[in-house]
Amino acid sequence: MPLLRFDLIEGRTEAELKTLLDAAHRAMLATFKVPERDRFQIVHEHKRSQMIIEDRGLGIERSDKVVVVQVTSSHHHGRSEKVAFYKNLCEELERACGISPSDVVVTIVDISDDSFSLGLGRAQFIEG
Amino acid sequence: MPLLRFDLIEGRTEAELKTLLDAAHRAMLATFKVPERDRFQIVHEHKRSQMIIEDRGLGIERSDKVVVVQVTSSHHHGRSEKVAFYKNLCEELERACGISPSDVVVTIVDISDDSFSLGLGRAQFIEG
Amino acid sequence: MPLLRFDLIEGRTEAELKTLLDAAHRAMLATFKVPERDRFQIVHEHKRSQMIIEDRGLGIERSDKVVVVQVTSSHHHGRSEKVAFYKNLCEELERACGISPSDVVVTIVDISDDSFSLGLGRAQFIEG
Repeated sequence: MPLLRFDLIEGRTEAELKTLLDAAHRAMLATFKVPERDRFQIVHEHKRSQMIIEDRGLGIERSDKVVVVQVTSSHHHGRSEKVAFYKNLCEELERACGISPSDVVVTIVDISDDSFSLGLGRAQFIEG
Repeated sequence: MPLLRFDLIEGRTEAELKTLLDAAHRAMLATFKVPERDRFQIVHEHKRSQMIIEDRGLGIERSDKVVVVQVTSSHHHGRSEKVAFYKNLCEELERACGISPSDVVVTIVDISDDSFSLGLGRAQFIEG
Repeated sequence: MPLLRFDLIEGRTEAELKTLLDAAHRAMLATFKVPERDRFQIVHEHKRSQMIIEDRGLGIERSDKVVVVQVTSSHHHGRSEKVAFYKNLCEELERACGISPSDVVVTIVDISDDSFSLGLGRAQFIEG
């Protein structure tokens, strides 16, 4: 159960937002082989003044389409899987939404299997 | 100092929100034996379109009352304590707010003792 | 690339917010010696009823100026660095914004170097 938190600048329609979330979910499915309905996405829309996303001096230009994704995942993915996710996510967001790869920032927080409850007061990942 | 972040769909009154937060805090107190005023709760209210919370194919039905709780905790709780928290949280939310256990999703992020400052520019957990 | 998430009570002007974020960034620069443009800040403004920030019984008084900062960092900072950050952050926020150190709460989530993508679908910290 990866939980994805999206921070965006406001201004998208509901349909545009849905397209973006669908695209991100396709990247999850393709990379991590999660079940189709392993989808947990939360969006925070911000005023322009509420997001300052620079580039560490790497010369990456940001626009108002910038997307910051924070993934909380119980599956400790290897390095190559994470890198594949960054790439797949950028490709999907560019194709579906016209978001440039320079506008996609990601962080991944790994947590343990017993640190998730998908509902019903149970810890599904340790109960099988 | 567990910090709890709640993601909810908008529509609750302030009083209903307070009832929900009180219930969640009772679950914290009962499970983790934290001090009464060890309460750090932040709420994000979202439009319906900003939260997609599915079920990994487990057949758990969600309603617009869905609550996603992210706990950031410096106390590395054991497995049985975490499971007890999921259960207690569901019971409290159902009793106080009529929220079904199928609408309660939780993640826990464990961080180290020196990763908290409760105020005053100090790291209270390592200074005793 | 530390990513900083700020939770605040609404009511600041854009200029006041900018002053606050600049002050926090100065504390980052001073403590962690990150590059000037290593700046990733996201703000969530809340209604008063959406934040309950108590004190664990330590007698720390909060006002409506309370600031909760969650840092997600790939650099595993030592204890003394973290403590220095808490102190520097409080000093900067007090000097620039008149925020009392009793209103500054911080958590730090350490993640691995391959868990960040600063853009372009790449994992910059492991690619050098």
